[in-house]
Amino acid sequence: MTIAAQMRKIAQDAKAASRRLASAEGSVRQQALLNMAELLGQSGPAIFAANKKDLDAAQKNGLDSAKLDRLTISQGVLDSMIQGCREVAAMSDPVGEIEGMKKRPNGMLVGRMRVPLGVVAMIFESRPNAAVDAAVLCIKSGNAAILRGGSEAFHSIKALTKIVHQALEDAGLPKGCVQVPPTTDREAVSALLKLDEYIDVVIPRGGEGLIRAVVEQASMPVLKHYKGVCHTFVDASADLERAVLIIHNAKVQRPGTCNSLECLLVHQAVAKKFLPKVAKKLGEAGVAIRCCKASLPLMGKTAKAAVKTDWGTEFLGLVLAMKVVADLDEALDHIAQYGSNHTEAILTESHANAMRFTREADASMVAVNASTRLNDGGELGLGAEVGISTTKLHAYGPMGIRELTSAKFVVLGQGQIRQ
Amino acid sequence: MTIAAQMRKIAQDAKAASRRLASAEGSVRQQALLNMAELLGQSGPAIFAANKKDLDAAQKNGLDSAKLDRLTISQGVLDSMIQGCREVAAMSDPVGEIEGMKKRPNGMLVGRMRVPLGVVAMIFESRPNAAVDAAVLCIKSGNAAILRGGSEAFHSIKALTKIVHQALEDAGLPKGCVQVPPTTDREAVSALLKLDEYIDVVIPRGGEGLIRAVVEQASMPVLKHYKGVCHTFVDASADLERAVLIIHNAKVQRPGTCNSLECLLVHQAVAKKFLPKVAKKLGEAGVAIRCCKASLPLMGKTAKAAVKTDWGTEFLGLVLAMKVVADLDEALDHIAQYGSNHTEAILTESHANAMRFTREADASMVAVNASTRLNDGGELGLGAEVGISTTKLHAYGPMGIRELTSAKFVVLGQGQIRQ
Repeated sequence: MTIAAQMRKIAQDAKAASRRLASAEGSVRQQALLNMAELLGQSGPAIFAANKKDLDAAQKNGLDSAKLDRLTISQGVLDSMIQGCREVAAMSDPVGEIEGMKKRPNGMLVGRMRVPLGVVAMIFESRPNAAVDAAVLCIKSGNAAILRGGSEAFHSIKALTKIVHQALEDAGLPKGCVQVPPTTDREAVSALLKLDEYIDVVIPRGGEGLIRAVVEQASMPVLKHYKGVCHTFVDASADLERAVLIIHNAKVQRPGTCNSLECLLVHQAVAKKFLPKVAKKLGEAGVAIRCCKASLPLMGKTAKAAVKTDWGTEFLGLVLAMKVVADLDEALDHIAQYGSNHTEAILTESHANAMRFTREADASMVAVNASTRLNDGGELGLGAEVGISTTKLHAYGPMGIRELTSAKFVVLGQGQIRQ
Repeated sequence: MTIAAQMRKIAQDAKAASRRLASAEGSVRQQALLNMAELLGQSGPAIFAANKKDLDAAQKNGLDSAKLDRLTISQGVLDSMIQGCREVAAMSDPVGEIEGMKKRPNGMLVGRMRVPLGVVAMIFESRPNAAVDAAVLCIKSGNAAILRGGSEAFHSIKALTKIVHQALEDAGLPKGCVQVPPTTDREAVSALLKLDEYIDVVIPRGGEGLIRAVVEQASMPVLKHYKGVCHTFVDASADLERAVLIIHNAKVQRPGTCNSLECLLVHQAVAKKFLPKVAKKLGEAGVAIRCCKASLPLMGKTAKAAVKTDWGTEFLGLVLAMKVVADLDEALDHIAQYGSNHTEAILTESHANAMRFTREADASMVAVNASTRLNDGGELGLGAEVGISTTKLHAYGPMGIRELTSAKFVVLGQGQIRQ
């Protein structure tokens, strides 16, 4: 069989399995997740052995330590997978709920029933446990999943998928509910991305290059964000002591993530007072600052002048661009020009400015007096998340179980016809 | 300027205008719609004159009478445009509402604010008044619109757009809020569909060929349905007298529409009793029947045997495919195989079968004891509609003003950081 034919078979099996999953009771899907938790708990040795194969090969291929770290399944990573299964299993079943049932003038009832999307393809890099996280959320929401991880995690994902299959079968569900292409050939991804007849949505997670390649090729809708170029605007009325702590958290707590701060905008009225404070705190953390002309003299001798490309750049490390602005208008203009619709924050004591910023800053999360790092499914109360969307269609922001469903119209009539 | 450069300019202007629209108060957007109603009422002669140019050219080019009819702006069509402006103006403003604001354990408030999608491109055929309908819904929902109608309606759309621009300017909004490419060259559409940097979504309305061409080329999300292959299943327990009326309505009331009935499925237990009844009623209306083997002898001498391609076909006329099925399972299997996710109905007195059908039939509207023709924004209570989506992402079913918005997360904090 050619790779294209193999992928078509996988997609067809997924479509068939998705019908079974969508009509299965929530208790059956829940049981599959509890089985998975149980089996993962018993399978540590097999999982670690498979993971070691991947790690050995990766070391041979000279993967850097950050990537090796993400590839590693430690006992802690395994435990958190198990906990994830149990937590999602305990959530209420989103499938089949009917919202807002109302009576129309002709007497028929009209409501909207939550339904699974159908078949979800996930294309991701590095972390093999992402396969389990995705499988768990898809099963819970009644979707069949096709999971395509990085080739460097091949053996780990294979071992994890074996467990997922066992858990499904023990719950009476077909293995087709969760499938992993048996090849690491890139052609497999290209073939999958043409199968919009069977696959309802694709969710890529990884670097901007991966995501652009998926968007370029996909014939079905893609839920994604390219990057997070997040700003924080320190307004004239901001509580400056608190601002230092928020900005430190947003930049330093985990600088490699998409919701970390990349550019600080400071109102001119407080620049002189605020910049030395923040310079000290960020300097201690080893943050390199790229300053606009107005801020450069205020930021100490380690600061460098920004170049044009620093605006709108996702540094993914301990680098921060910094700009003094005349007012909220200039801050909003800067964000409109350079932001990535991911996360924007304002630090202010002015109610009017807070309300205007939340309305006019165009981002999947807008925050008042809080760290950009809080744009996360868990922090915002969604439970587990399957990624963050910065396109406004279908989902804007972190995507949880609900974002893996749609809603169809249900009409309950007594003979109504169109007049 | 090349066409590509012209389209880029239009898209950039739309993006800039979309920021103005999104931050304009609802009362300003409402005023623009009321202005539009007023100006349309005063501009009958100019509109009819422009429309006559298109009609004369169309007649010369030999357009068929159905297309000429759709191209015509009569006083009745103008009146309904005016009424549409007023009705939509009176609806509550969807932009800026915050839903479900909840407090997280760390004390911050998290809610979701309705925001416009940004820039909406509509590609449509024939009916020039669709330009006004689309402009009205986009302005109400705070979106900038790029409207590309059929070349045969060029002068009509130009005259209507002039009025829309006047209405916008009188309300203090820029003309860039609603734009029409100044050329009928097909290259303009191709160029627009590449501009995902500025255009957030494209909504094509027209024949399957047009829609497939748009999906093929578009780099931004597309909201659409290809076709409506709608089924109705007459269960063993159905009220057969009522079933005849519902099926007659679904097939005959307006057979050229996407929510009309294309295939009737009948439970074997009632086939003998039911089919002669329905044959008589449909025969009187001139409906040609394509029968499965089991139904053929029961449907009278005008019925023909179905060929394989009749299943899954959108006839768009007075033709109906008909199949006797063993039970609900076979009906659901048939729908899963041949349906188009548009509209599916069951006629039954069995509560269990009604509930199972609503859950398992995968369509944007599932109906119990009602006509498929009711899958329409107005009938379902959405007010005006901008099309029907049969892809489950973002919208499933008729799309109204709410479907032209998204929801971003709003966080109101007091110094919260990520732990």
